[in-house]
Amino acid sequence: RPTNHRVYGEAMAILAGDGLLTEAFRLLAEEVDSDAGTIIRLVSGLTRAAGSRGMVGGQAIDILYQGNDDKVDAALLETLHRRKTGAMITGALLAGIELGGGGEELRHRLKRFGDAIGLAFQVADDILDETGDQNKLGKDVGSDREAGKLTFVSLYGIDQSRKHLAELHRVARQTLEPLGERGEPLKALADYIVTRDR
Amino acid sequence: RPTNHRVYGEAMAILAGDGLLTEAFRLLAEEVDSDAGTIIRLVSGLTRAAGSRGMVGGQAIDILYQGNDDKVDAALLETLHRRKTGAMITGALLAGIELGGGGEELRHRLKRFGDAIGLAFQVADDILDETGDQNKLGKDVGSDREAGKLTFVSLYGIDQSRKHLAELHRVARQTLEPLGERGEPLKALADYIVTRDR
Repeated sequence: RPTNHRVYGEAMAILAGDGLLTEAFRLLAEEVDSDAGTIIRLVSGLTRAAGSRGMVGGQAIDILYQGNDDKVDAALLETLHRRKTGAMITGALLAGIELGGGGEELRHRLKRFGDAIGLAFQVADDILDETGDQNKLGKDVGSDREAGKLTFVSLYGIDQSRKHLAELHRVARQTLEPLGERGEPLKALADYIVTRDR
Repeated sequence: RPTNHRVYGEAMAILAGDGLLTEAFRLLAEEVDSDAGTIIRLVSGLTRAAGSRGMVGGQAIDILYQGNDDKVDAALLETLHRRKTGAMITGALLAGIELGGGGEELRHRLKRFGDAIGLAFQVADDILDETGDQNKLGKDVGSDREAGKLTFVSLYGIDQSRKHLAELHRVARQTLEPLGERGEPLKALADYIVTRDR
């Protein structure tokens, strides 16, 4: 389906984003059935995942270096995606601990899992952008490369990117091992991220 | 000074807005020295002032009717500005009550005051857009009219708009009367909104 900004115009699409971002905080403050201290920690966690050191910060790096991909190295590319995609994924996992309970050990474990699948999501995205089916993707194959974006594929090549993806997948699954059956839904999520074709 | 989007580009200016919106919630959750219940009410209040029924909603109406100013009547214009500017002004006043204390009567009073100065701010803005000093405004005189925006001036004319502004100013000051000296800072704010020339 065509994106929001194509159907409603850019100004309205931006406002929809501002409205939904604000609505997320309203839901936490008004609809979560938990004690006040927990709710405040959820608000705080979401601001850190979404804000200038998280998703917004990652997106800013992305824009700053667009068309300057010769100035991006592997470390910067990982930082970018850790913030742009990874921070919100990890933030969601940590919110789950906040609500469902769990100690420091589980927190570290899920943070590690989130970092791995967040990065895996982006590596898979970059591979799909080069090798995917245009009809399934809903965008032109190679569009990131043409926009002058540095991708994992442009940095490492397809084969090496696939190895990187497989390694991240392995780390993600291994991190969940001690959780036994309770970890199955998250394992399925990791599997989906690595095998998706759109 | 030139606006954000001229200096840094539109994408970065939008991100700055998303980052600052998120940062406002972080400040409430992490930096306000108050009990957890109060902080949650502040978060909730800010989402209602800023979100789709407040500022974002007002801005959306503004965009929807841009270039269609023949479809805007006085009631819609007031709704637009009550949301776009008024909701955040009133929200700030109510946050003050939340933190500083005050009962239902004060809440209603400050809400009434906020509604009046929020609307006054916009009426003054529309008058300035037609009669102001281009150098002080930092934008071309008549730019709203040329953008096809319905303004109070285009709806009522300059003279009637000035009368409307004076009436809102009177209501705002009168609403503060029972507060005595404690109301002086807010009175000064109302005076500034009505007399500003930029």
